[in-house]
Amino acid sequence: MRNIILSLAMSLDGKIEGPNREYDWIPIDPESGAEMNRFAKGIDTVLYGRVSYELFGNYKPDSESSREEQEFYEAVDRMKKYVFSSAKTVFEGAPKVISSDIKARVNALKAAPGKDIWLFGGAKLITTLMNLNLIDRIELAIVPMVLGEGNPAFKDLLSRHPLRLLSTKQHQNGIVMLSYEVEN
Amino acid sequence: MRNIILSLAMSLDGKIEGPNREYDWIPIDPESGAEMNRFAKGIDTVLYGRVSYELFGNYKPDSESSREEQEFYEAVDRMKKYVFSSAKTVFEGAPKVISSDIKARVNALKAAPGKDIWLFGGAKLITTLMNLNLIDRIELAIVPMVLGEGNPAFKDLLSRHPLRLLSTKQHQNGIVMLSYEVEN
Repeated sequence: MRNIILSLAMSLDGKIEGPNREYDWIPIDPESGAEMNRFAKGIDTVLYGRVSYELFGNYKPDSESSREEQEFYEAVDRMKKYVFSSAKTVFEGAPKVISSDIKARVNALKAAPGKDIWLFGGAKLITTLMNLNLIDRIELAIVPMVLGEGNPAFKDLLSRHPLRLLSTKQHQNGIVMLSYEVEN
Repeated sequence: MRNIILSLAMSLDGKIEGPNREYDWIPIDPESGAEMNRFAKGIDTVLYGRVSYELFGNYKPDSESSREEQEFYEAVDRMKKYVFSSAKTVFEGAPKVISSDIKARVNALKAAPGKDIWLFGGAKLITTLMNLNLIDRIELAIVPMVLGEGNPAFKDLLSRHPLRLLSTKQHQNGIVMLSYEVEN
């Protein structure tokens, strides 16, 4: 079975964005480029919520961004993309759309041949997939910041999810990478 | 100036207790005993919110608990204790009570001679002291658990608090110790 991997940056108090979707508190991380590209090598499919896809699904870094960042987004661009939306069926870039039977559709994806699957977010899709016990790994970049107001990565969960720590890594800029297996 | 150190166990999703004050998700940690006693050597004063003091201010581990845990609570028992409460002025164990002028009172404590000061919690006192920029260090034991429902360590904050990572340490049982300086 392919793993579904939630991978994102989170403040120490569990937020993934400010109250108005601010991301300015997430520092540029010179060490993350190589890690992102290593991560990309292990995945071939990305899952987005509707809003996340509209914001980031067709993101292209500008020409001033690092070589590694450009490589990463070129790799993401070649992946299969799925958008979860019950309201909208057509999106820029023509991703596949999942609008119902989420559990069955995602389990079919996991059972299909291929590399692992990146759960990009946002919070609503994380909630849905956590509550269906479909997430296999959680990889967080803990940003050295208590953000206060903002949108949490995890909310409206129906139960606890025990984790098994796989690894930790400390970056020069104070970001801590935490990798867990979800004990579903 | 003495440091005020917030030190507590937190789930990966930022909770310090379940919705009914459950702590059963915090595992016994054989590696924490020595660390707790090293921590205790650097402090001589503990700050509690009213509810936290009533629950834990006079806690005595039973005779079956580890030698290190007993040593730790004996050390805590000898420390100066302050309870923040506007409603109640007398508590079991006769701690000092701070009921008003929090900023001035705490700054006076920080300026007085002595070791560092442990901010025990709970969430409401953490909010108050964070919003007054009075917390100097945050030391968290990140428990490998997405708790879901529960009470967050940080809530109702008026602003962001950038942190500087001091150290990380991975325990055998999956707990990750993260230590930060608050950039007030």
